[in-house]
Amino acid sequence: MDILSYQSDFLTYLQSQKISREPKNLYEPIEYILQLGGKRIRPILTLIAADIFSNDYEKALPAALSVEVFHNFTLVHDDIMDDAPLRRGKKTVHEKWDINTGILSGDAMLILAYQYFENYEPAIFQKLAQLFSKTALEVCDGQQLDVDFETRNDVTIEEYIQMITLKTSVLVAAALKMGAIVANADEEQADHLYNYGLNLGIAFQLQDDYLDTFGDPESFGKQVGGDIIENKKTYLYLKALEVADESDKEKLVHLYSEKQKNNTDKVTTVSTIFKANNIPEETQKLIEYYTNKSFESIEHLTIDDAHKHGLRVFGENLMNRKV
Amino acid sequence: MDILSYQSDFLTYLQSQKISREPKNLYEPIEYILQLGGKRIRPILTLIAADIFSNDYEKALPAALSVEVFHNFTLVHDDIMDDAPLRRGKKTVHEKWDINTGILSGDAMLILAYQYFENYEPAIFQKLAQLFSKTALEVCDGQQLDVDFETRNDVTIEEYIQMITLKTSVLVAAALKMGAIVANADEEQADHLYNYGLNLGIAFQLQDDYLDTFGDPESFGKQVGGDIIENKKTYLYLKALEVADESDKEKLVHLYSEKQKNNTDKVTTVSTIFKANNIPEETQKLIEYYTNKSFESIEHLTIDDAHKHGLRVFGENLMNRKV
Repeated sequence: MDILSYQSDFLTYLQSQKISREPKNLYEPIEYILQLGGKRIRPILTLIAADIFSNDYEKALPAALSVEVFHNFTLVHDDIMDDAPLRRGKKTVHEKWDINTGILSGDAMLILAYQYFENYEPAIFQKLAQLFSKTALEVCDGQQLDVDFETRNDVTIEEYIQMITLKTSVLVAAALKMGAIVANADEEQADHLYNYGLNLGIAFQLQDDYLDTFGDPESFGKQVGGDIIENKKTYLYLKALEVADESDKEKLVHLYSEKQKNNTDKVTTVSTIFKANNIPEETQKLIEYYTNKSFESIEHLTIDDAHKHGLRVFGENLMNRKV
Repeated sequence: MDILSYQSDFLTYLQSQKISREPKNLYEPIEYILQLGGKRIRPILTLIAADIFSNDYEKALPAALSVEVFHNFTLVHDDIMDDAPLRRGKKTVHEKWDINTGILSGDAMLILAYQYFENYEPAIFQKLAQLFSKTALEVCDGQQLDVDFETRNDVTIEEYIQMITLKTSVLVAAALKMGAIVANADEEQADHLYNYGLNLGIAFQLQDDYLDTFGDPESFGKQVGGDIIENKKTYLYLKALEVADESDKEKLVHLYSEKQKNNTDKVTTVSTIFKANNIPEETQKLIEYYTNKSFESIEHLTIDDAHKHGLRVFGENLMNRKV
């Protein structure tokens, strides 16, 4: 299980599938966002899963591409909704073109994602499309909950975990299960792999939240403290409200109630409160909890030890990342 | 072939499939737009096609719903792009809620449209999804061309027909073919029905253009002259540029070069120029051309005469409509 070779094979395939369709104002933005880079974690997981169950991971390349195109579709539409100017250090689609282009190119990407399944025979096609539709709808649900939470002051930690499960984890889980489906894996085995991905995805998102506030500014790649500036009610914030004393709680609620004039001060103050309340440690503990829960699913897989080891190493690398 | 009973059966089915899913901020807008009404032409065509080839049109209800949900998805996203405040006399989704809700609810509708195909066995499912993806992508292409044409001054009539074919006709055609697929019709027969729909769809859109300028204000249901006010380069405008003398041409180009202060004057002036250049007659001639072309496909169908007659009557009614 060589992550780098999966990645490079996927990138080669992505290049070979370049969309040279007209009208160019619709398809150029799609090429643009797909070439922006990223870790390509989801398609790699599809290839890993196919490799584990069939030793023929090339067969899973169209499914992997579908997952990546869908993921990028969500980025294009989410960036419009979040009014985000930058993505991976480059202009977002709606900034480089306009909002209408972002909407329509995104729509086309969602359709293209389904089309890649046409590479498979009817029975596999239907299984993939069915899992994909279920997952895609859950991702929409998660995005809507994220939007809803912005204007709610009573979000619980449980609701937050539910939201990131829908918005992020189900796609990580489905990416793996799709690889298993392409490899004709047993349904139960495919579901264990799905659960591995589901919990790993939650840990991954919590790690994202952690890095956003406590990441090393040198290696993080984007502005540290972005979530604080945006008043994002992440696990860090919700946990702090739960454990902090009245004074800290009031300060936090006040700081998160409006956009502040001085963001540097705000990030410093909030980070200090988080640290004083052991939030970094609490977050790491929860990340570990979900990572371990994820690893439990590996034990249910009837695959050889090298592959089990590979899945664990992949999870550990993801949790020790700096970006 | 009783259009009204297809329509009422479809509406009953639509009600029975009410989406009672959470989060409600995502699904309420979907219910709203689906309940706004409309002629339901596309799902009716799916039922007609299934009835012709199998006498069991109820089997085609999920496919018909898919077509209608997709059509309404395009309305939600197009209304954002066109900045349209009203749809069927009621607030558009992004006006009643906001743009982000319009984007996300639209996305969910596109996914739901695929999910309705899960009612069919794998072979039928794949055929439907494949035709659907091809069609949906063409509709996106058509919408992009429509946007592109706004800033171009060299659009040809041929290009305009190509644009409305993609934006409108392919879905009418696919709606019919889906009914044929569900009914296990012979591929060639299904394609003849597709071509009937494709040309009928072009005639339908040209009739739309005609009614927008020359419809009876009493029965038209929306503002007559909307396309003129919006500087829409429809067939009427493009044909006028082709046949008018230099003076009329200059006037038209000038009137369409900016938003005018007095829209009533503009609509009157443009309509007068159109009439002086026989544009109403020219448009009616082209509508007739495509309607006849559509009817030619009926002759290739090996179905009984009553059904052939029904398809012709349906087309004629569509062309004689006032709304």
